[in-house]
Amino acid sequence: MISIRKRTFEILDIGKKQDRLSRVIDIFLVVLISLNVLSVILETLPALSDRYHGYFQAFELFSVLIFTVEYLARVWCSVEDDELKRHSPLMARIRYMLTPMALIDLIVILPFYLSMFVTVDLRFMRVLRLLRVFKLTRYSSSMTLLLQVLQRESRSIAAAMFVLFMLIIVASSLTYFAEHDAQPEAFSSIPAAMWWAIITMTTIGYGDVVPVTVMGKILAAIIGIMSLGIVALPAGLLASGFSEALRQRRRTYEKMVDQVLQDGYVDDYEQKALNQMRESLGITQEEAAHILHTNQTRKQEQDLERDLQTLRREMEAVKEDRCPHCNHTVHWLERRKDRNEDPE
Amino acid sequence: MISIRKRTFEILDIGKKQDRLSRVIDIFLVVLISLNVLSVILETLPALSDRYHGYFQAFELFSVLIFTVEYLARVWCSVEDDELKRHSPLMARIRYMLTPMALIDLIVILPFYLSMFVTVDLRFMRVLRLLRVFKLTRYSSSMTLLLQVLQRESRSIAAAMFVLFMLIIVASSLTYFAEHDAQPEAFSSIPAAMWWAIITMTTIGYGDVVPVTVMGKILAAIIGIMSLGIVALPAGLLASGFSEALRQRRRTYEKMVDQVLQDGYVDDYEQKALNQMRESLGITQEEAAHILHTNQTRKQEQDLERDLQTLRREMEAVKEDRCPHCNHTVHWLERRKDRNEDPE
Amino acid sequence: MISIRKRTFEILDIGKKQDRLSRVIDIFLVVLISLNVLSVILETLPALSDRYHGYFQAFELFSVLIFTVEYLARVWCSVEDDELKRHSPLMARIRYMLTPMALIDLIVILPFYLSMFVTVDLRFMRVLRLLRVFKLTRYSSSMTLLLQVLQRESRSIAAAMFVLFMLIIVASSLTYFAEHDAQPEAFSSIPAAMWWAIITMTTIGYGDVVPVTVMGKILAAIIGIMSLGIVALPAGLLASGFSEALRQRRRTYEKMVDQVLQDGYVDDYEQKALNQMRESLGITQEEAAHILHTNQTRKQEQDLERDLQTLRREMEAVKEDRCPHCNHTVHWLERRKDRNEDPE
Amino acid sequence: MISIRKRTFEILDIGKKQDRLSRVIDIFLVVLISLNVLSVILETLPALSDRYHGYFQAFELFSVLIFTVEYLARVWCSVEDDELKRHSPLMARIRYMLTPMALIDLIVILPFYLSMFVTVDLRFMRVLRLLRVFKLTRYSSSMTLLLQVLQRESRSIAAAMFVLFMLIIVASSLTYFAEHDAQPEAFSSIPAAMWWAIITMTTIGYGDVVPVTVMGKILAAIIGIMSLGIVALPAGLLASGFSEALRQRRRTYEKMVDQVLQDGYVDDYEQKALNQMRESLGITQEEAAHILHTNQTRKQEQDLERDLQTLRREMEAVKEDRCPHCNHTVHWLERRKDRNEDPE
Repeated sequence: MISIRKRTFEILDIGKKQDRLSRVIDIFLVVLISLNVLSVILETLPALSDRYHGYFQAFELFSVLIFTVEYLARVWCSVEDDELKRHSPLMARIRYMLTPMALIDLIVILPFYLSMFVTVDLRFMRVLRLLRVFKLTRYSSSMTLLLQVLQRESRSIAAAMFVLFMLIIVASSLTYFAEHDAQPEAFSSIPAAMWWAIITMTTIGYGDVVPVTVMGKILAAIIGIMSLGIVALPAGLLASGFSEALRQRRRTYEKMVDQVLQDGYVDDYEQKALNQMRESLGITQEEAAHILHTNQTRKQEQDLERDLQTLRREMEAVKEDRCPHCNHTVHWLERRKDRNEDPE
Repeated sequence: MISIRKRTFEILDIGKKQDRLSRVIDIFLVVLISLNVLSVILETLPALSDRYHGYFQAFELFSVLIFTVEYLARVWCSVEDDELKRHSPLMARIRYMLTPMALIDLIVILPFYLSMFVTVDLRFMRVLRLLRVFKLTRYSSSMTLLLQVLQRESRSIAAAMFVLFMLIIVASSLTYFAEHDAQPEAFSSIPAAMWWAIITMTTIGYGDVVPVTVMGKILAAIIGIMSLGIVALPAGLLASGFSEALRQRRRTYEKMVDQVLQDGYVDDYEQKALNQMRESLGITQEEAAHILHTNQTRKQEQDLERDLQTLRREMEAVKEDRCPHCNHTVHWLERRKDRNEDPE
Repeated sequence: MISIRKRTFEILDIGKKQDRLSRVIDIFLVVLISLNVLSVILETLPALSDRYHGYFQAFELFSVLIFTVEYLARVWCSVEDDELKRHSPLMARIRYMLTPMALIDLIVILPFYLSMFVTVDLRFMRVLRLLRVFKLTRYSSSMTLLLQVLQRESRSIAAAMFVLFMLIIVASSLTYFAEHDAQPEAFSSIPAAMWWAIITMTTIGYGDVVPVTVMGKILAAIIGIMSLGIVALPAGLLASGFSEALRQRRRTYEKMVDQVLQDGYVDDYEQKALNQMRESLGITQEEAAHILHTNQTRKQEQDLERDLQTLRREMEAVKEDRCPHCNHTVHWLERRKDRNEDPE
Repeated sequence: MISIRKRTFEILDIGKKQDRLSRVIDIFLVVLISLNVLSVILETLPALSDRYHGYFQAFELFSVLIFTVEYLARVWCSVEDDELKRHSPLMARIRYMLTPMALIDLIVILPFYLSMFVTVDLRFMRVLRLLRVFKLTRYSSSMTLLLQVLQRESRSIAAAMFVLFMLIIVASSLTYFAEHDAQPEAFSSIPAAMWWAIITMTTIGYGDVVPVTVMGKILAAIIGIMSLGIVALPAGLLASGFSEALRQRRRTYEKMVDQVLQDGYVDDYEQKALNQMRESLGITQEEAAHILHTNQTRKQEQDLERDLQTLRREMEAVKEDRCPHCNHTVHWLERRKDRNEDPE
């Protein structure tokens, strides 16, 4: 019984890519989630929704069934997780059920069962079904990477957001006072002016609300130019954080390659370990090959360089009558002579 | 009397977060300012403004009272400030009253008192009330950071602005000459064309003014492509300045952690000092924990590495019959032998 | 026969810029391709297309003829390529014909010959003719550079695209549910809402579809602000990858200049080698001159610095009665004195 | 006579800011140029142009007079320029007249004199008058900096432009084929579609031309997402180039401060030299003070650190009975003892 639970946990766990069955299940679930998202999207097309209503419903039923089984299996075998093992089985399962991913797993199936007993708003149910797209997070290393970056850069992004927020308030208020009389409908209140301010500051500029007074236009021009700098802040911070995180992953891999190359070549066992690391870090095969090649070349160059330097130093030392170890020439020889002359 | 003044100064001063009363007052003021800003915004919604007119007025009265007390208290105890202490009390207070933050504190309460004696334009009063949002600057480390970055990068931003300014003049003038005849209203003058030029160059593109002649479209296309580079300059400079400033703060903290870890562990007193620094630099607890952990690990690695190298060197020296200090073998031994043979 | 084939290969091969005939042919082909693209573009102008119909057709005939000859020549002499030499002539040619560039060469002439036998849709033929623009890729070092960068950064760009894709799905679905009732035409389905979402998130903001409900506007504002960061990711990654690749090219050149300057000056043979490398790396003459000058200056400075330091050390040593090699004074002198006193 | 010419050259030359008269003339010319630009702009406002027609004309006359005198003076004393001195006076003047700045100086006054003899189109004359704004380039260090950066990064910007150009051609052609039938006016030809493509790819998005077919919308979405990366390239390259150039200037100044601080303090002569360099590099006084302070602090820290290390090493050496210079203990002492025992 326990061995089945352990096996189930291994299969559902992401990352163990050597395990063929686990991989098949992963791919099956990713495809199912993607089809679910596609189905929610296509169901909104009247042409399709009318003709294939039955198919959509059948697919929804099938999906909910699978996701329910998946959810129950995950809860059941969550006690195998190393981090939850120290708790009692019940406690471990409750703790697992409260993790964000498990909550999403629950939320995306719950409305279906609820609709059996109470009437649930159809639109609300569709929104909840759409949340299934977040189940993909588990399988996407880029999504996890982005979440990491967001967490690490959270402070500076919050800072940029605070500045942006203040700028929006000031911009919308001033423009409200400038435009309210000329356009009492578009700039009916400061919250209404905020819509204009945000669409302007993000440089989207729909053109549905545009200042018409000279004062409003001057304000909009200043706000437009200022927002160029302020609005670009979160973008710049996120981009640099993202590229830094990617570089770190590459460096971690390079370090391992370096250690592996200490003895000059890569044996079968080391190759396997490198492969595993490459996959867990999400580095492409081309990139890995490039890193390996670069390191090998550099190592060979360094060896060559070292040999050459030693040779050169020894040759010069011989030429100039010096000790090749510490370059003291005259003194050693003089002393030798001194000493040689000493006994005489 | 003086001890009360000192205490008031401590309470109103930001940064001393160990002081519970100071913290409560800080939070109270931040909430009050935020509610004030919210109230100015909501008052512009006719539905709310009509129904809750009395509440808004009462809240305004209450706010002005508090802000007046705050302002007077700040001016009164400003003589306790280390930088102003060397002046006479009167001089210190005048100097304090001329600082930007004190001026804002005054401006946001003044119109209320003025309106008792003279009729002040209601709209102008609202704009001044909205300035209360800048009172938040005192409590936001991100705002202070941004102001620092703006000051440090001021030259390069001014340079980018000058280039942008020249491009706007040239772009609006040329397009004015190209479009004036076709659209005499939208491009009625160069200042009018500037509105179009700025909205185009910031890539907002409302679409309220659009060139229609072939020449105007070609000019707009060239301007659009050129502005991609020029307009991005201030954004890029600000973003890099901001992220550099954040990195510097982190480095300062890392340096302190480094010093604290010299003896290998962190005692209670050091922990307290680190906490204080962390707060004043505005670093999150997660980040601080990460930095501490990284430094500890690195220190242990370095120690291990050093021990290992010493061991390795000594072993090799022993193996090859050399002095472990400078690797001279042959000479020492030879000389020793020389000397040993000397007395013989 | 074989020598003619070798010569043809050399002429058609890019990069050998010392070869005058090869250069002339290169320029001729680049001009012809550019004129072809221009001709496809101008042919869509009714005024030109009607009046010069004959000229356009004649030019098309001439171009296809040249491109056919070029294609056949390339296939014929592809066996001279070092990478394909190890295959049999037939195999080498088939392999060459399957390379992306060879396929493009074929596709852009094929429809002309097909139209002799079957009726081909005129619009489709024009699109294929337009593909001739990609023949320029072969001659543009910047295009090859961009493709390299795209390949190297492919993973992080794919990651950013995945995040963007999820954001588009969530944004369009939520806005669909918010706006569908108010604007049943513009937001008729989620795919229709996607058009709005993409135009908003790329900050293009045409304004043809704009949310009108309060909920839709709040969603749009949040999406607009979020997309500032997410959408800038691929841009930032690409820009940093591009500038990194350019820096690497410069470094490679600097390294070569460094080696060439080891002996202090640049002779005729080295100058030629540098020129060839400069061209193949795509570095301008001004930049190359700048690099050369900087390196020369640095080298001279380093030499000077080294000489100066030696001199200074020797002078101090003499002044303070110490050995210039290791600064031991007292011991040497004392010992000398010891020794000198020894025999006495 | 020659001394007057030399003096005139000094006065007109930029950069010698110690010279009061030169400074006054500089400021006068900058103000005059700015007023000229302002006058061209304001003249297009009908209200102003009608009422103050006479003033505008008088100011134009006065400006042309001054600019003519300036131009003649610059040509006359150009022989004093160090770079032109080796030519004959006539040749030097012709060479000077062909420099870009001298050509601009000529072009902005020429139309006035031409209009005396032939009828010149008024609009064309205004455009030429507007070119006076470029006379400011001479006085703006940021403009010169930008030109330097543009020159240095010219290759990579050209590369990005080529890619952008190809993307525009492909995007406009494909969308033309998709939209031509649905919107025969907006997408009347590929050049017409290019207007849409450029406005879309620069994310301006006026909304005057918008695809309506499903195919056109899909193409526009793809183009919009792709352009996010491609279009950001020149911006990123320019921004990084600009910030790199600013950093280099700062480094140059820091290096000089370093040299000046070698002896520990800054005397009057050094202060003057630093000031001159600061001005020529365009570094603000605050920044210079910051750099000076940082370097002084670092130097003091380094001195302290060095003293401390020496002390520590000596103490340890004494403690462990070793030579403080090279850590050889046992050997020296043993040998000493050996020698001391020798005579015995």
